[in-house]
Amino acid sequence: MFPQLYLRKGAERRIRAGHLWIYSNEVDTRRSPLNGFEPGSQVCVFAANDKPLGTAFLNPHALICGRLISRNPEQGMTPQRLTDRLETALALRERLFDRPFYRWVFGDADGLSGLVIDRFDNVVVIQVSTAGMETMRESLVRAVQKLAHPRSIVFKNDGKMREVEGLDSYVAAGLGDIPDVLQVEENGVRFEAPLAEGQKTGWFYDHRMNRRRLQDYASGKRVLDVFSYVGGWGVQAAAAGAASVTCVDSSRTALDSVGRNAALNGLSNVDTLEGDAFTALKDLCDQKERFDIVVLDPPALIPRRRDQKVGEQAYARLNQLGLRLLDRDGLLVSASCSMHLSTDRLVDIIRGSGRRIDRFVQLLEQGHQAPDHPVIPGIPETDYIKSCFVRSLTGFL
Amino acid sequence: MFPQLYLRKGAERRIRAGHLWIYSNEVDTRRSPLNGFEPGSQVCVFAANDKPLGTAFLNPHALICGRLISRNPEQGMTPQRLTDRLETALALRERLFDRPFYRWVFGDADGLSGLVIDRFDNVVVIQVSTAGMETMRESLVRAVQKLAHPRSIVFKNDGKMREVEGLDSYVAAGLGDIPDVLQVEENGVRFEAPLAEGQKTGWFYDHRMNRRRLQDYASGKRVLDVFSYVGGWGVQAAAAGAASVTCVDSSRTALDSVGRNAALNGLSNVDTLEGDAFTALKDLCDQKERFDIVVLDPPALIPRRRDQKVGEQAYARLNQLGLRLLDRDGLLVSASCSMHLSTDRLVDIIRGSGRRIDRFVQLLEQGHQAPDHPVIPGIPETDYIKSCFVRSLTGFL
Repeated sequence: MFPQLYLRKGAERRIRAGHLWIYSNEVDTRRSPLNGFEPGSQVCVFAANDKPLGTAFLNPHALICGRLISRNPEQGMTPQRLTDRLETALALRERLFDRPFYRWVFGDADGLSGLVIDRFDNVVVIQVSTAGMETMRESLVRAVQKLAHPRSIVFKNDGKMREVEGLDSYVAAGLGDIPDVLQVEENGVRFEAPLAEGQKTGWFYDHRMNRRRLQDYASGKRVLDVFSYVGGWGVQAAAAGAASVTCVDSSRTALDSVGRNAALNGLSNVDTLEGDAFTALKDLCDQKERFDIVVLDPPALIPRRRDQKVGEQAYARLNQLGLRLLDRDGLLVSASCSMHLSTDRLVDIIRGSGRRIDRFVQLLEQGHQAPDHPVIPGIPETDYIKSCFVRSLTGFL
Repeated sequence: MFPQLYLRKGAERRIRAGHLWIYSNEVDTRRSPLNGFEPGSQVCVFAANDKPLGTAFLNPHALICGRLISRNPEQGMTPQRLTDRLETALALRERLFDRPFYRWVFGDADGLSGLVIDRFDNVVVIQVSTAGMETMRESLVRAVQKLAHPRSIVFKNDGKMREVEGLDSYVAAGLGDIPDVLQVEENGVRFEAPLAEGQKTGWFYDHRMNRRRLQDYASGKRVLDVFSYVGGWGVQAAAAGAASVTCVDSSRTALDSVGRNAALNGLSNVDTLEGDAFTALKDLCDQKERFDIVVLDPPALIPRRRDQKVGEQAYARLNQLGLRLLDRDGLLVSASCSMHLSTDRLVDIIRGSGRRIDRFVQLLEQGHQAPDHPVIPGIPETDYIKSCFVRSLTGFL
């Protein structure tokens, strides 16, 4: 039996509705003082009326102090349960993808709060972000070895969340060597991505399906890929037969990777443009440049709820610039990874931008995060990626 | 110059924001009495402050009495403008689809309010639903002939909307013969669909992309296709390698087509079950039948806003039955064509259904209407199709 954690009255509602997190201000600290628990320990969670809600990993120092492990109060996290969940997660990815390149574990969405695993064939990159999951490190290495037989297992444990949890920041091998670059394959196109120096695990599989959709529109087109990073969108558009691709990013390192990734696929029509995206787009407008397709995939412009207004204004400016750069019959691919920006708001921002400069805009497709990043209804934080494929017509109506 | 239609103060706002419809109660009937206009005539629309908003087709007898043609007050509908818009619409479809099977015109979304055209290779089926568009019938036949050279043009003018507009109901050839059945191809699978006796134009291209996605999940699975109509989902799942498919529908005629469509693709593992869907699902539950994939594609269960509550309850019952019929690791494909049911509400209904019977549900994909049914931001009525691909796990968390 695990130590008992009691919630305040009403705090069980969100959990009963499907969420897996417990906030520290939801704990009845009179009945179960938080400082009585070790970071990373397992507890049995009870509603105020003494009904058990399940087990959880606990960290008394974190705002999100509890992460549900199971709704069964007798089932804690064990090496076997960890292996089972990794296996259930893997079964979905193996069913969906021909090649072993995917997000294997997407935290809460796979019943493994605090854990992200990306697979790059025989290199597995793990991010642990909670004290609870950190206690499972050894079991994790064994389970991943057993299920996927990788050459390397890398802990990329340098995320911001770790400090909040009182964990140190490091990149270390759990097995084998740490490769300098990751070899990635997505939608039949090859990439190299930086690992130790790269963002997050080095690659973003979340837009995989949306990039696949772009391929159907790209043939013969002039494409502008804004916030390109290492060229995920642009190089795939080029591989699908785009006439020309221009990748815009503020990082020279990222643009160097774009060049290498184009070459890796035998493509010679991918250019790069270094600079701040907003400035670069304005300059291209002033130079009366026009494109058939503009892809906007900015970093989260609404990082926190309190940035909502300023962030939405930034999305509006960006989308209006994107529309301005399109030829008379063009395609805007407008993406967002801000969980604070709903699809409805993004569509409305595009509507407003279109009206302001008198474009007839047709929303052709709405894309979401790929199925290796499942959304859990009831955990809004798992839902963050959206993309709108918008045809823009000038002088049409 | 066209006759002048004046709006009441404030009524221009929705139109400025992107909508194309004018309601009869938005007209300033003191300045421009509605009975002064002929049904189907063209007018120039003015805001209360005398600023022109554009041209529109008018029908004094309809609740939606005006349909914007252009935002330019000098540009009415002409045979040339009609041809141009058909051509712009066609260009998108030809870019997107290898084979000539698609919705060519989706009403307002293609700047042609009151007009729907579905193309089945060399058979073109047209639905006209407004008095304004009815005046363009002859030009329409000529434009379609010029752009697509079909063998048959069929007017399937028997929709409910026509009565409201004071138009008679008929099915007639605009060119060539009226074929008994339509030959359809979707995602590489062949179908026959009834034309004169069929629903709408006989086939629903709107779920095309969602059925394509289902193919990736279907191999080796036991599939239940509920509200199957002529087998759009089920036969495509079978063609993608499903172990077995059961199509449920209340129409014997539709199920006869399912059988023919399976045979047409050389498939012998598609069964049919005639009956009311809710009853059939309950019976299957009682018989402890289990499937790997359950597809729910009901007709609009919320036909009007006032049916919201009862309709949502029906969706909830349906989704809960669907989840109950899934094996321990199954896929629910839950679709809706009710414009009154938002994706968020549908996802929440699935969340609630999952919690009630203790399933861990992962929303893997969210599908929308295919890009030959564009959504116009600012015209919510153009946005109606949604589908949720949900993995359901039993005993997982």
